[in-house]
Amino acid sequence: MDSTTLHEEINSFFESAPPLKDSVKIADKLNQFVQFDSPSSEGKGRRVVCVTSGGTTVPLEQRCVRYIDNFSSGNRGAASTEYFIKAGYKVIFLYRRGTCQPYCRSLPEDPLLECFELADDSDFQVRQSHSEAVKGAIRNNHAAVAGGLLLKIPFTTIFEYLQMLRMIASSMRSLERHAMFYLAAAVSDFYVPWKSMAEHKIQSASGPLDMRLMQVPKMLSVLRTEWTPMAFCISFKLETDSKILLEKANMALKKYKMHSVVANELLTRKEEVTVVTENGNISVLRDKTRPGSDVEDPLIELLVKNHSTYIEDGST
Amino acid sequence: MDSTTLHEEINSFFESAPPLKDSVKIADKLNQFVQFDSPSSEGKGRRVVCVTSGGTTVPLEQRCVRYIDNFSSGNRGAASTEYFIKAGYKVIFLYRRGTCQPYCRSLPEDPLLECFELADDSDFQVRQSHSEAVKGAIRNNHAAVAGGLLLKIPFTTIFEYLQMLRMIASSMRSLERHAMFYLAAAVSDFYVPWKSMAEHKIQSASGPLDMRLMQVPKMLSVLRTEWTPMAFCISFKLETDSKILLEKANMALKKYKMHSVVANELLTRKEEVTVVTENGNISVLRDKTRPGSDVEDPLIELLVKNHSTYIEDGST
Repeated sequence: MDSTTLHEEINSFFESAPPLKDSVKIADKLNQFVQFDSPSSEGKGRRVVCVTSGGTTVPLEQRCVRYIDNFSSGNRGAASTEYFIKAGYKVIFLYRRGTCQPYCRSLPEDPLLECFELADDSDFQVRQSHSEAVKGAIRNNHAAVAGGLLLKIPFTTIFEYLQMLRMIASSMRSLERHAMFYLAAAVSDFYVPWKSMAEHKIQSASGPLDMRLMQVPKMLSVLRTEWTPMAFCISFKLETDSKILLEKANMALKKYKMHSVVANELLTRKEEVTVVTENGNISVLRDKTRPGSDVEDPLIELLVKNHSTYIEDGST
Repeated sequence: MDSTTLHEEINSFFESAPPLKDSVKIADKLNQFVQFDSPSSEGKGRRVVCVTSGGTTVPLEQRCVRYIDNFSSGNRGAASTEYFIKAGYKVIFLYRRGTCQPYCRSLPEDPLLECFELADDSDFQVRQSHSEAVKGAIRNNHAAVAGGLLLKIPFTTIFEYLQMLRMIASSMRSLERHAMFYLAAAVSDFYVPWKSMAEHKIQSASGPLDMRLMQVPKMLSVLRTEWTPMAFCISFKLETDSKILLEKANMALKKYKMHSVVANELLTRKEEVTVVTENGNISVLRDKTRPGSDVEDPLIELLVKNHSTYIEDGST
């Protein structure tokens, strides 16, 4: 596809999108969070990474009752955020509402009802079995947010996600090589243009339902080449079929000019990923000798090292 | 549609569904919960209602990455459960994972991180502003579950939902007129048969995506006439277009032989609903003079009264 057509498609996507609520407030927050740490003239500013997490939804009706969802628990994004903060990064966590949050991965699904019990008629206490997990979640989350290391921005639809990603890219542009994008969200490939969408609930007639979905324009290209041309960019490729995984990851690396593509297979994604780069593939494994360890631990270590090299390359 | 065709469609739906996990465990729980209160020979047993809540998902791929979701917060089902328990009912709460829970409606989205704060380095406490909401949630939930008045069963897909509903109906059959179904869940009208589903992730090729979805067979008919022919059955009709709402609700009442259909419009559903019955329509309004009141309060009051009449009619 030539770049004129891509630009037309992108314009048409954003023009057809419903306007973002609170966009001024979000822009203010972003600028405050990022500008505080603009790289000094020596280029020694704090690094900032935008971690995207969870799946986007595609509304099928304007007054949204039905939508298509890309499943993702958000576990990868939440875990990676913790390791980036540990490595000294500031993190903009762009996450799907309701998905897994940093420092909360070991909590049960419904923490309030499952972690607490009645002490007597008027009071309650944390259950002994969940005491450490609850304390850790509250303490670490508080330290990260109050310490200015973590900014959380929620989205639900593909329209919100891409509009917010564009705003974040714009606010991080001045960080140049200190900026990183770690695009772990499961973004829908297809959408229904807002204007061609049914205004009311689709009626179940007597036959099957036929639907036609349009391709979402490939925003990775414009993120990489126009929105933040200097940022270090990592995208993800998830497949259920291991046979085509590395080939697809390699194609994405070249097509979107990513610095790395993290290839993962649905069934083994918590144990193993492959970091695909121009210089070859590196397999990253979870440390099985340490119970409760994460594959994100060695993964973020590797990416931080690669980011350092990238920053150094720019200063020579 | 004649009933032979419907039965064929229903058989084909259940045969094509992936088998339910833990079905033996769920059946045991259900039987314990229900049998404890079978109506005595005088027909004076406790009433049991099955409240369904939240939207079902329709997987588009067998190894599920993408699916269609019917949006529903689950607020209606959670609120109604509270009022049914208050009215003396035992409630089987069949709910979509992650949706609103009874007694938790006034909590923020992420209760653990938003309701608690650090007291010092090693301890934490509930924030004053959320103290009552948190205490109420833990106390009331504990009282309902420990008191044997509330059994919670989670689902995600349309396949799980309908298989579980059939199990619940089978366990409640012996309660005869003391059983009620309050079907507030937003159930998908369309699905992709499991066997015709793509095994792997659908690849985004170069064009638009065309999809064909089949109609989910109308299980309300068989629930009402075969699974639990004596139970008092309430279904819901949600529309975004008020002009067709009452007409559609009336059609559902007749087609599925419901005892009532609760008609609600997306934008006003928290303020007003219409209970459609054979004997006419009754409009139910939230009591606006009481801050924080629910439309479910007068709604459940009305339905409990109608259920009483239905039980009395059966004993004459």
